[in-house]
Amino acid sequence: MDSRTHEVVIVGAGFAGLNAAKALKGSPANVTVVDRRNHYLFQPLLYQVATGGLSPADIATPIRGLLEKQRNARVVLGNVTGVDLDNRRVILSDGEVPYDTLVVATGSTHSYFGNEWSELAPGLKSLEDATRMRRRILLAFEAAERAESEEERKAWLTFVIVGGGPTGVELAGALVELARYTLKGEFRSVEPSDAAIYLIDATDRVLSTYDPRLSANAEKALERLGVTVMTGTLVTGVSEDGVTFKRGDDETMLPSKTVMWAAGVEASPLGRIIAEHAGIETDRPGRIKVEPDFTVPGHPEVFVVGDLANYPHQTGQPLRGTADVAQSEGTYVGRLIKSRLEGKEHKPYHFRDLGTLAVIGRSAAVADLRFIRLTGFIAWLAWLFVHLLKLVDFQNRITVLVQWGWNYITRNRSARLITGSFDSPFKR
Amino acid sequence: MDSRTHEVVIVGAGFAGLNAAKALKGSPANVTVVDRRNHYLFQPLLYQVATGGLSPADIATPIRGLLEKQRNARVVLGNVTGVDLDNRRVILSDGEVPYDTLVVATGSTHSYFGNEWSELAPGLKSLEDATRMRRRILLAFEAAERAESEEERKAWLTFVIVGGGPTGVELAGALVELARYTLKGEFRSVEPSDAAIYLIDATDRVLSTYDPRLSANAEKALERLGVTVMTGTLVTGVSEDGVTFKRGDDETMLPSKTVMWAAGVEASPLGRIIAEHAGIETDRPGRIKVEPDFTVPGHPEVFVVGDLANYPHQTGQPLRGTADVAQSEGTYVGRLIKSRLEGKEHKPYHFRDLGTLAVIGRSAAVADLRFIRLTGFIAWLAWLFVHLLKLVDFQNRITVLVQWGWNYITRNRSARLITGSFDSPFKR
Repeated sequence: MDSRTHEVVIVGAGFAGLNAAKALKGSPANVTVVDRRNHYLFQPLLYQVATGGLSPADIATPIRGLLEKQRNARVVLGNVTGVDLDNRRVILSDGEVPYDTLVVATGSTHSYFGNEWSELAPGLKSLEDATRMRRRILLAFEAAERAESEEERKAWLTFVIVGGGPTGVELAGALVELARYTLKGEFRSVEPSDAAIYLIDATDRVLSTYDPRLSANAEKALERLGVTVMTGTLVTGVSEDGVTFKRGDDETMLPSKTVMWAAGVEASPLGRIIAEHAGIETDRPGRIKVEPDFTVPGHPEVFVVGDLANYPHQTGQPLRGTADVAQSEGTYVGRLIKSRLEGKEHKPYHFRDLGTLAVIGRSAAVADLRFIRLTGFIAWLAWLFVHLLKLVDFQNRITVLVQWGWNYITRNRSARLITGSFDSPFKR
Repeated sequence: MDSRTHEVVIVGAGFAGLNAAKALKGSPANVTVVDRRNHYLFQPLLYQVATGGLSPADIATPIRGLLEKQRNARVVLGNVTGVDLDNRRVILSDGEVPYDTLVVATGSTHSYFGNEWSELAPGLKSLEDATRMRRRILLAFEAAERAESEEERKAWLTFVIVGGGPTGVELAGALVELARYTLKGEFRSVEPSDAAIYLIDATDRVLSTYDPRLSANAEKALERLGVTVMTGTLVTGVSEDGVTFKRGDDETMLPSKTVMWAAGVEASPLGRIIAEHAGIETDRPGRIKVEPDFTVPGHPEVFVVGDLANYPHQTGQPLRGTADVAQSEGTYVGRLIKSRLEGKEHKPYHFRDLGTLAVIGRSAAVADLRFIRLTGFIAWLAWLFVHLLKLVDFQNRITVLVQWGWNYITRNRSARLITGSFDSPFKR
């Protein structure tokens, strides 16, 4: 055995990767975290950036700052394009990083199910996505103000969210708040509260992974806010002028200038690259079916965690792609590697499910905890508490608390900035 | 006289334009504010966004929100491309707006004195400029961390600011703080405090519009912070690899990957367009030499205020291009128009100069007030107080105060985000 220090490389500093790195603190290994972003992002609050309630920096923290005190960890800002499993190297666009143990935690992106709708119906995964969506939403109201026909005005004031999971539900609720309260009185030719907000889902209910009673409650709460919820509805086309959808056999075209995507999830492309090299198959969304210890079959030195991993060993079903699962997997694998390096045994993985939460609007949420289901104000308080706690940086917690408090009282959303140059609000 | 309401159109919602609009509150006119941004921007704090101390939304406020309660005002988001003085119409890229009275307040931009350096040495006028500069600064440290030769590393850690006015001085001070304290300990291969920061000015002192004793004080304070101040130095070339400058007859090339522009100021292109139509001349930076009442010669219905106006009638010299002057001119012209519409006389313009302030670093500033010159901590407190007060939105004041307090105590700057996609930190 050589005396060289063991090199652990972690690709991706999201919920899974960052927690794997932190769990390796004090281990007899060098830890290198590679990410193409310089910040750790609290993705569950992206919809608040997209609707002007929070600023990008409120929900993002420099990765270097988070690992500054961990002396065995270094951070490399780089774009990973592949992995050479034979020679144990991570390939960057401008170099490579050798590893002894590799942890891949590059997460997921949107799936348009083979359609070319990403420009027409942008999703919400990065800060850039969020500021782009914010721009589109705010420019739609600007264009409505300047529209010359009633038809045109209506299309600019129609917002369609495709996908009724937590992101879609939360985005719909925040959009209502924006249109009905924040922008109220700011326009002269249109009434922003006339905005029509549609939430479309192909399954028969919103929040389909939650208890059906909570789905029903969320749907009612959304309808009360004025959101048109259309379940059992399949989007068959997206264009610059609107969406086409099918309910049963009827196909309808809904004119809308702003379509947002909160539907399919697809694993990061690195999953398929690794699977191909390893001679294994991915599941349909491109995730790697990992062993019970999260290693890639045939490669005990390569771990996959977070949204990129398909982990069916606990319940028979893959664990869900949420922040809590990713954090738990990352921490487990970090500890497992540490134990192995120290020659210790490690207990098998078990995800302890504390439940799921989704906010619907001001003072309303649903919470599917382990032994109890909450709705309304109490669920909303639980949601606030959990989300504030989970922001890793103390300054983020303070500024988010100040902004939420202020927004709650005044119904203002001060981060309503249209950034990026443009020629005309009609050409976004 | 027709009974149609008088239409006042204000182009540009900066310090001058917004104050003109506000002064027209309650006047018997319709006020239309046209801007290509949806936000009013507190430009004096842009350097804090560029160095990660504040978020864009902290120093910007939606224009609509500011004019929401003023029922005779409306806001048009549009890109003004010209003015038809004969037919009294403002030309947009996608339409036109007729006026009876026009106020042009489109401000100024950078001047590279005829050189094509805007991509190589970006300036600091908009939020996009600030986030782009932030990205360049932070990526420079990332590239230094990954550099393979000492020479390359040094070029990445060398920062050159061209222009020793308030923006250049404040940016230099903030960069020192970032490099020496905030980033300290976050890198493994480089020591961010090794960063070399140069401040270059062609005149014989920094802050050349201030009292010479304050310039000397500022220069000493900067040198104490570790900034290399080079006065009497003319930049003759900028490339991807550094700057060339001349001191006396010597021409030197300084290798640097990050050159920032805080030097020349040039009036908005609308100045020359209007001057040409009106058959008058602009001054060298492209400003319009206005009449004592801020009207364009020969066009008593067209006013020019703020950085775009050359107003020599008070002191013989054009009034300086700062926020306080712009605000004062905007308010004056708004009131003047109101008086005219009401058939009243209005007193001539007089700018009451309360002085100028520039911050140098943590707890250090210089203030050139009317009867007193301040330096050090007391000047810094004055600076803090004035800048917090001048933020128009109350929420901005709270969040800026919280962030400044936190940054002051922890020396952290949490808005250190690199946004926008990139392939490699070496290719910014």
